[in-house]
Amino acid sequence: MNYLKQVTHIDNVKLSEDGSSVIIIDQTKLPAKTEYLTLQTAKDFYDAIFELKVRGAPAIGICAGFGIYVLARSIEAGNYEDFYRQFRQYQQYLNSARPTAVNLSWALKRMEQVVRNNREKAVEEIRELLRKECHTIWQEDIEMCQAISKYGLSLLKDGDGILTHCNAGPLATSRYGTALGPLFLGKERGMEFHVFADETRPLLQGARLTSYELQRAGIDVTLICDNMASLVMKNGWVQACLVGCDRVAANGDAANKIGTSGVAILAKHYGIPFYVLGPTSTIDLTCKTGADIEIELRSPDEIKKKFYEHPMALEEVKCYNPAFDVTDHTLISGIVTERGICRAPYTESLAGIFKEQ
Amino acid sequence: MNYLKQVTHIDNVKLSEDGSSVIIIDQTKLPAKTEYLTLQTAKDFYDAIFELKVRGAPAIGICAGFGIYVLARSIEAGNYEDFYRQFRQYQQYLNSARPTAVNLSWALKRMEQVVRNNREKAVEEIRELLRKECHTIWQEDIEMCQAISKYGLSLLKDGDGILTHCNAGPLATSRYGTALGPLFLGKERGMEFHVFADETRPLLQGARLTSYELQRAGIDVTLICDNMASLVMKNGWVQACLVGCDRVAANGDAANKIGTSGVAILAKHYGIPFYVLGPTSTIDLTCKTGADIEIELRSPDEIKKKFYEHPMALEEVKCYNPAFDVTDHTLISGIVTERGICRAPYTESLAGIFKEQ
Repeated sequence: MNYLKQVTHIDNVKLSEDGSSVIIIDQTKLPAKTEYLTLQTAKDFYDAIFELKVRGAPAIGICAGFGIYVLARSIEAGNYEDFYRQFRQYQQYLNSARPTAVNLSWALKRMEQVVRNNREKAVEEIRELLRKECHTIWQEDIEMCQAISKYGLSLLKDGDGILTHCNAGPLATSRYGTALGPLFLGKERGMEFHVFADETRPLLQGARLTSYELQRAGIDVTLICDNMASLVMKNGWVQACLVGCDRVAANGDAANKIGTSGVAILAKHYGIPFYVLGPTSTIDLTCKTGADIEIELRSPDEIKKKFYEHPMALEEVKCYNPAFDVTDHTLISGIVTERGICRAPYTESLAGIFKEQ
Repeated sequence: MNYLKQVTHIDNVKLSEDGSSVIIIDQTKLPAKTEYLTLQTAKDFYDAIFELKVRGAPAIGICAGFGIYVLARSIEAGNYEDFYRQFRQYQQYLNSARPTAVNLSWALKRMEQVVRNNREKAVEEIRELLRKECHTIWQEDIEMCQAISKYGLSLLKDGDGILTHCNAGPLATSRYGTALGPLFLGKERGMEFHVFADETRPLLQGARLTSYELQRAGIDVTLICDNMASLVMKNGWVQACLVGCDRVAANGDAANKIGTSGVAILAKHYGIPFYVLGPTSTIDLTCKTGADIEIELRSPDEIKKKFYEHPMALEEVKCYNPAFDVTDHTLISGIVTERGICRAPYTESLAGIFKEQ
């Protein structure tokens, strides 16, 4: 159980004691090395997010909240207008690091709102309110993960085989994670799951992070290549698919790591329920459908070169390297949020959880 | 056009002039290096097949034919019984190198048949007949590829987007290849295709071999990770899927590189025709369905370690590493052989092409 706690209570993103920097685990170095990075400048934060040193929609949101606070502390401004102008510049710069994850802009907007709502106050007071707000974002994330884990666990049975794609565990969030949360919570309660982790090319978050987190927590995990999911399902080894999400449209279309839509199509073919787990902060009602979600395209080198001793394809070969895809709402059995489980029709159920607030 | 010929007329497997060895391109070294290997001993042949230095069902068959001839030359036997006994030992040893590919056992049995049919002849004469037979296997493969290419091309339109998985091109066969054959033949005839090559984890035959062959032949190719196929299809970029096969059961279930069944399920979901291309030698009427096909399981290290600078998962993480999967016949739009295109119901159409002979 203590071993489990080492995983679920890891602080992958935290503010330094004096508030002058953010300390993160460099997720690109895992599992070979657990290396901590100290981020202070705007470029530090941009690079950490762009290069996936911090990744996972909720973790990016937490890092952006802490980060813009650290940057706000450094602003030298005699009046509100100067302060706000420089704050906005930092906000826009950080926001451009990754276009698909809604939590990045969501956290930054939430911090901006604190500035805008307190224009009558002294800059020092605003800074103090920003410090509180970024801690609130972090604390809310911990509670959110626990609630999602609880709702998600209600969908599973002891002994179930679970397939997951990419990483939506403690490293991607705080504490339990979203898609992996039910597995850690179930483990605490003495349940056993048999998890298949897609390695998740090109950056191998499933191999490097998901199998690492589950193995360290003592949960049975088998690593597979993405293209083995079909056979694993056909073998009858999977009773449910659990994945995270980076942005959910009003109709339930869900953007997540590239390959997620393929897993959903396979699950439908084999009659296996497919669940998307994520905080309500990833639900973007201003996006009507998945067609409105911008898909980030990344460097061909991630496919052709990265991680390899030798280039794996001719230098001149073209690559298409989308970081995400959108899973059609018709393929999704349920969207699990901290406020409960939404079912089709999603246009009603997703709007509903915001109204209930 | 000459550039195209350099690809389609490459001899990836050939018998040395004096018949004492087989010379192959080491496919595990591509695309970084074009390195030739000389195979002479039984272990040389076993290792080359097991380690995928020679791969692709037809190429394995050709190599096994040449190989058992080279080994038959080395047998020191005064009489037929001694000769046949040692021949059988070599045959069984080579046959155990890869259980899923039917061409390996098919070519070896064909060579064995020459020995059995000529027991009244002198050993020297039998050796000469074996030399002819292995050349016949090779020549037939060239004709087979040309015929498959012609039939396959009849299914495509100029400008089509094509998705392929693994490698079933010249390197996997002789000359044109099977699944890629229609693309090379179309190129010769001035047609343009836009090909998406799945990289095909864990051993990346799509990245290393398919994109290499197509790029060198001047055919438009875009390399993708396996999990990007769903998005590429959703984007409307694919008009047909072409894949090879390692063994086809009597009902049309087709074993091919791991991940093929997933591509077929995606193609069905998006309404894209999915074609399996291969010689009639891969059709195994003694297998009633795909359930009778043994799936080779390979080392976890191929997933966790190979190709990488650092291990990509914890040493203790389990891996499931099947080399093949079986695509259900209901997902296959057509099986293209050198004798024509079989359509459902396959139990009738596949049996039919053997009867017509």
